Amino acid sequence: MKIIAATLFLAATAVPSFAQNADGSQNAPSRTPLLTDSNFEAVSPALDRYIREAILGDLWQRPQLSPRDRSVVTLAVLISRNQTVELPFHLRRALDNGVKPREISEIITHLAFYSGLGNATSVILLAKEAFTERGIGAEQLPAASPQLLPIDQAAEAQRAAGVERNVGPVSPGLVQFTGDLLFKNLWLRPDLAPRDRSLITVASLISNGHVGQISFHLNKAMDNGLTREQVGEVIAHVAFYAGWPNAFSAVPVVAEVFKGRPG
Amino acid sequence: MKIIAATLFLAATAVPSFAQNADGSQNAPSRTPLLTDSNFEAVSPALDRYIREAILGDLWQRPQLSPRDRSVVTLAVLISRNQTVELPFHLRRALDNGVKPREISEIITHLAFYSGLGNATSVILLAKEAFTERGIGAEQLPAASPQLLPIDQAAEAQRAAGVERNVGPVSPGLVQFTGDLLFKNLWLRPDLAPRDRSLITVASLISNGHVGQISFHLNKAMDNGLTREQVGEVIAHVAFYAGWPNAFSAVPVVAEVFKGRPG
Amino acid sequence: MKIIAATLFLAATAVPSFAQNADGSQNAPSRTPLLTDSNFEAVSPALDRYIREAILGDLWQRPQLSPRDRSVVTLAVLISRNQTVELPFHLRRALDNGVKPREISEIITHLAFYSGLGNATSVILLAKEAFTERGIGAEQLPAASPQLLPIDQAAEAQRAAGVERNVGPVSPGLVQFTGDLLFKNLWLRPDLAPRDRSLITVASLISNGHVGQISFHLNKAMDNGLTREQVGEVIAHVAFYAGWPNAFSAVPVVAEVFKGRPG
Repeated sequence: MKIIAATLFLAATAVPSFAQNADGSQNAPSRTPLLTDSNFEAVSPALDRYIREAILGDLWQRPQLSPRDRSVVTLAVLISRNQTVELPFHLRRALDNGVKPREISEIITHLAFYSGLGNATSVILLAKEAFTERGIGAEQLPAASPQLLPIDQAAEAQRAAGVERNVGPVSPGLVQFTGDLLFKNLWLRPDLAPRDRSLITVASLISNGHVGQISFHLNKAMDNGLTREQVGEVIAHVAFYAGWPNAFSAVPVVAEVFKGRPG
Repeated sequence: MKIIAATLFLAATAVPSFAQNADGSQNAPSRTPLLTDSNFEAVSPALDRYIREAILGDLWQRPQLSPRDRSVVTLAVLISRNQTVELPFHLRRALDNGVKPREISEIITHLAFYSGLGNATSVILLAKEAFTERGIGAEQLPAASPQLLPIDQAAEAQRAAGVERNVGPVSPGLVQFTGDLLFKNLWLRPDLAPRDRSLITVASLISNGHVGQISFHLNKAMDNGLTREQVGEVIAHVAFYAGWPNAFSAVPVVAEVFKGRPG
Repeated sequence: MKIIAATLFLAATAVPSFAQNADGSQNAPSRTPLLTDSNFEAVSPALDRYIREAILGDLWQRPQLSPRDRSVVTLAVLISRNQTVELPFHLRRALDNGVKPREISEIITHLAFYSGLGNATSVILLAKEAFTERGIGAEQLPAASPQLLPIDQAAEAQRAAGVERNVGPVSPGLVQFTGDLLFKNLWLRPDLAPRDRSLITVASLISNGHVGQISFHLNKAMDNGLTREQVGEVIAHVAFYAGWPNAFSAVPVVAEVFKGRPG
């Protein structure tokens, strides 16, 4: 009897998206499915209020970043920090906010390399479930080996030279994979815009405290079209999903990047 | 058959607190429930011994930090590192050690902001289960919007000016939320003493390697009453639950803070 | 009905190793069990291809590091980052690649201290399952209190003096536990070679961004026999399982260590 109870409890806990299927609410969930108000109220009515008012009611409505971009950033933070409990809700919210299935697929693939393979594999079955629920089939997903975007030869040569100089004497393997697999392949995949690829990379770096790697990718992101105002709002958004300390640790590095750019 | 076996196995794995309900031991568990000696012995008799002797038998008995404070610190580390496997045991141990339900509620809420929302939502159902088991109802929880503690206007003005100067040019949104939501609201909630709020913030920072954010919060913690001896013991305690490298990385920063203070 | 579906789904998700028991494939799995090609193809055919071609087909076949060492490194990364979804596969792959059960047991125990207790307890039941499946009993595990390896008195005296000088003024407890529990006990346990103990420590440090702690342990690892070529390849391997930013952040520190050593 104990074990049956545990199983039911666990089913409800770990696959929250299932439990609300019957009432059809999952296409426009107001918050984390099954982590309902009543569960939050049994532990922290305050957190319940903060989520409803400060996060969903205020943060997500701010105009400095579109709901679509906020969903992209939120997915990047949650995947790269392996916070699977929030993902069933935010995968569906991302689709509602206009993030394309092929973009979600590429976000997962990209973050396999930028945050570790296990974070990507952890989200595979959760994403499959959300896709199945919405009737999203293989024809909406990127090909395994699509026609790649054209490479910027000059920028790539400069990047490769820098990595060869700095990383070559330590790890020739890392130099090779970084070029062949990442910059000559992953980054050129066409189903996620370079600006969005940069956006999730920067969000992932900030949300995991990788301050030393922010400068290169933030410059690349801004070259790809991310504005200063958007960058500032990404930091504020990430504060909620990755914690205040990660946001604050990113600020001095971002300030330096801003100073080093024209305008 | 395979799937049934998997379900039972998983139930036992992921909701350890249930399995010992029948024998009544959960009110005074000697260690991680269901992660019993026999399971540890099937993998690592050495780890089993270390936990019983070095951690529960030695560390937790040291007088430099009360069992209550050790529970507060342990919850902070586990929540802010999303280590849910240890939480069912330590939520109950915290209650046994005198941490009030309202304090546990506030710890979860506070760490939603200081370690990311997903870490807090991951503990909601585990805490609800522990509260239900102990008969803890809504009347023992903090109000969503209580009467706040009075603010220290001078300290707040100084903090706000520093954040405006350093963060303002990068992320006006982060400046605003940090003031309105954190320092003028969260930190003033009355159901967790400022000293304890500082204690969990510092423990969370150390256990996630946020060395750049330690100085401000450690000074605040010591202003709020944490002694040098307690700080030193927090670091030793965190070493076990967040790993030695995080403890060692904190030491130079803590040493600097000690030097900069009178006495 | 919903709940039953959720339970079956969850069983398949969280204990992937079970589902392939019937066909006998688990002794030589081609990839993460149950995270089958069809599940990956429903979300990211690209990631499926990268795993098969770049990771299992290329990375794992490179001669700079043996498959056995790659398994040791992979276990260290996955355990110390708490990425349990990949562990059922890699625990079995490690056994297939010649990592001894007693070594796996010691890896788990060692990383309890170097990456936090919760990471080790999270793997206990997964490892028990893999051991049971392979018929590995208590007689193949290290004793809780074995005869320890002889200590290098000179090196230990130097280490202890440094820690006393740097850590002593802040945390006497950390000084004591570091000596008595780690360097005079854990590191001297005979069932994992000192070179392997260093290897997992370095892999764990890199994969969690603990750059400040790398120098000491990398020097110790190379004193214990790890070559420059192997170190470089460890970094490349860790890039895939802990993300590129952690690999790149380690490079400058490793370069400094290389410069400071003869040869």
